[in-house]
Amino acid sequence: MNDYPFTSLTKSLPSTVPFVGPEAQERQMGKPFQARIGANESVFGPSPQAIEAMRLAAMDVWRYCDPENHDLKEELATIHGVKPENIVVGEGIDALLGNLVRMIVSNDTPVVTSLGAYPTFNYHVAGFGGRLELVPYKNDREDPETLIERAKATSAPLIYFANPDNPMGSWHDANSVQAMIDAVPEGAILCLDEAYIEFAPELTAPPIDVSNPRVIRFRTFSKAYGMAGARVGYGIAEAGLALAFNKVRNHFGVNSIAQAGALASIRDRGWLLNVRQLVDKARNEIAHIARANNIKPLVSAANFVAIDCGRDGVFARRVLNELVTRGVFVRMPFAAPQDRCIRVSAGRPEDLAAFEAALPEAIKAAELF
Amino acid sequence: MNDYPFTSLTKSLPSTVPFVGPEAQERQMGKPFQARIGANESVFGPSPQAIEAMRLAAMDVWRYCDPENHDLKEELATIHGVKPENIVVGEGIDALLGNLVRMIVSNDTPVVTSLGAYPTFNYHVAGFGGRLELVPYKNDREDPETLIERAKATSAPLIYFANPDNPMGSWHDANSVQAMIDAVPEGAILCLDEAYIEFAPELTAPPIDVSNPRVIRFRTFSKAYGMAGARVGYGIAEAGLALAFNKVRNHFGVNSIAQAGALASIRDRGWLLNVRQLVDKARNEIAHIARANNIKPLVSAANFVAIDCGRDGVFARRVLNELVTRGVFVRMPFAAPQDRCIRVSAGRPEDLAAFEAALPEAIKAAELF
Repeated sequence: MNDYPFTSLTKSLPSTVPFVGPEAQERQMGKPFQARIGANESVFGPSPQAIEAMRLAAMDVWRYCDPENHDLKEELATIHGVKPENIVVGEGIDALLGNLVRMIVSNDTPVVTSLGAYPTFNYHVAGFGGRLELVPYKNDREDPETLIERAKATSAPLIYFANPDNPMGSWHDANSVQAMIDAVPEGAILCLDEAYIEFAPELTAPPIDVSNPRVIRFRTFSKAYGMAGARVGYGIAEAGLALAFNKVRNHFGVNSIAQAGALASIRDRGWLLNVRQLVDKARNEIAHIARANNIKPLVSAANFVAIDCGRDGVFARRVLNELVTRGVFVRMPFAAPQDRCIRVSAGRPEDLAAFEAALPEAIKAAELF
Repeated sequence: MNDYPFTSLTKSLPSTVPFVGPEAQERQMGKPFQARIGANESVFGPSPQAIEAMRLAAMDVWRYCDPENHDLKEELATIHGVKPENIVVGEGIDALLGNLVRMIVSNDTPVVTSLGAYPTFNYHVAGFGGRLELVPYKNDREDPETLIERAKATSAPLIYFANPDNPMGSWHDANSVQAMIDAVPEGAILCLDEAYIEFAPELTAPPIDVSNPRVIRFRTFSKAYGMAGARVGYGIAEAGLALAFNKVRNHFGVNSIAQAGALASIRDRGWLLNVRQLVDKARNEIAHIARANNIKPLVSAANFVAIDCGRDGVFARRVLNELVTRGVFVRMPFAAPQDRCIRVSAGRPEDLAAFEAALPEAIKAAELF
């Protein structure tokens, strides 16, 4: 290994990745997965209108994308009842989280999140030299009161909170989230990740208030809109905060075909309703399959179901590995005690049939191990 | 403006953008450009095979992209005679430049580049707190010897050099570039931006040698491959350096449709040859138009021609503005004395006809100003 002129921070970082993609697992196994229900993608796909818009946009891909994402921002602003200057669009929520962390975090900055919450957020915090302050889940839900308390105790300028939560699918209602927003201490910003909000019950998202400089909300086209491969996410924030992303973002970063697809996709409300129904049905089916195998599905407000395998993380990992071996791609939480679960994304009937077929054998094999 | 808990570095950064997109100008003017020949895009478009691959990939966009960019890396490795671990793929060269700068640059790190070279590189250096050491062009070409000397004098760990150069279109031959690579001081890395290399004469690029840890070469699908809106660029480097990007990159950042298009596009060598011929013809035509208007085209190894308007930057800016007003989108160098030129990208016959029609009036109006 050569001695590159890296900063001391860079030298300290691991070359590992937050997630291994299912493609890497497929290459290792030498065969494709039969069911791809591990990354909370929307296997139901994007709106047919979005597909058509992307096909049309393909021949214009010789043009650089609009770095202001003008048309998409206008439409998002209309939908959310805010102004375009309250919207920042990026290469998925992942890129925007990186931008936000970069603006706030430097050497040893304390940052509060839940133990076992989104690893890519943690990756960014570590990547900019921050110090993670980890708050345990409480009854398999993120714990807003303790997150705020920890932020106060450590003077953390940044707090991460996902609602609904990934990987558990649990959630808090709008009143609780509003209470959390109201409690954000001065000098701190709440990063409210609402990637799964479209799957949640009514009254899960508090009203959007862009006059509040202490919260930024993130939404995505990767989940309900079925465009994970497109890489389009956005933040909604007070204009000064949204504008500040211009200091650090990759201005020409959002693919032009993706911008066209995202625009068409939010205009097709019928498709969104359709996907919601399909996800609801799939969640019920996953729960049914779990119960039939004497393991316990948790109630979910997202497009996946965490299933309590009834023992510890080692056992759940075995069940997961046995499913993967049988061609069913699923994932699981990282931290105890949530890692007693496996996490299964909503699938089409054929995906869930593969899961249903593999699960009894997987559990049996895990028990025999 | 609220007092956000930004780092002192973030607070010091401007919210301005490296480039204003032509779409923003069009919105301001209230009409589209007649000719879009300002951003060195390939108006000839991508390979028809790439378009077809992207159209096909659109319906699978519900899947996250392969974060390892496996298939694309394999193909690029084969073409360049290196191993996949010598390749790093990112959201355009822009994103990779950001990653590279982030790994090397922190507070007050000296970084060497040419005065008037690629602004987005400078944006990244400023964004990570670095200090730019600017070396003037020499006879409208970047000056390898002085760049190396300055790196030695300042102990700069990072040097930027583009071959062919943007915005002038000038270039150095392979022997000169190899001599520069060989002269990179210990503890420094040469960032060799070869975005325009496909348009250059034979023997402009020195052989690729991935055993050398002191150089990383960047290539792109935005120029000759006609996929600027797709956002795919790549670096070729010693494996340890290429792998280190995993410490900081946005792993799921490269759009899946773009990956499919890039793969199809490098397999279509015929299209690349076709584009090269069209660009060569367009460069000649631009030169012809310039001479017919008594302004001086510079010889170019890229898909654009810098035209010396014969006076200073103020005059060239006027010519540019008059062209823009007449529906012809062009750009110009930022720094004197190169800013005596306007920069015109290779266009189709109809684009260059619009340029030809507007130029005499534009010069006349600029002279009358």
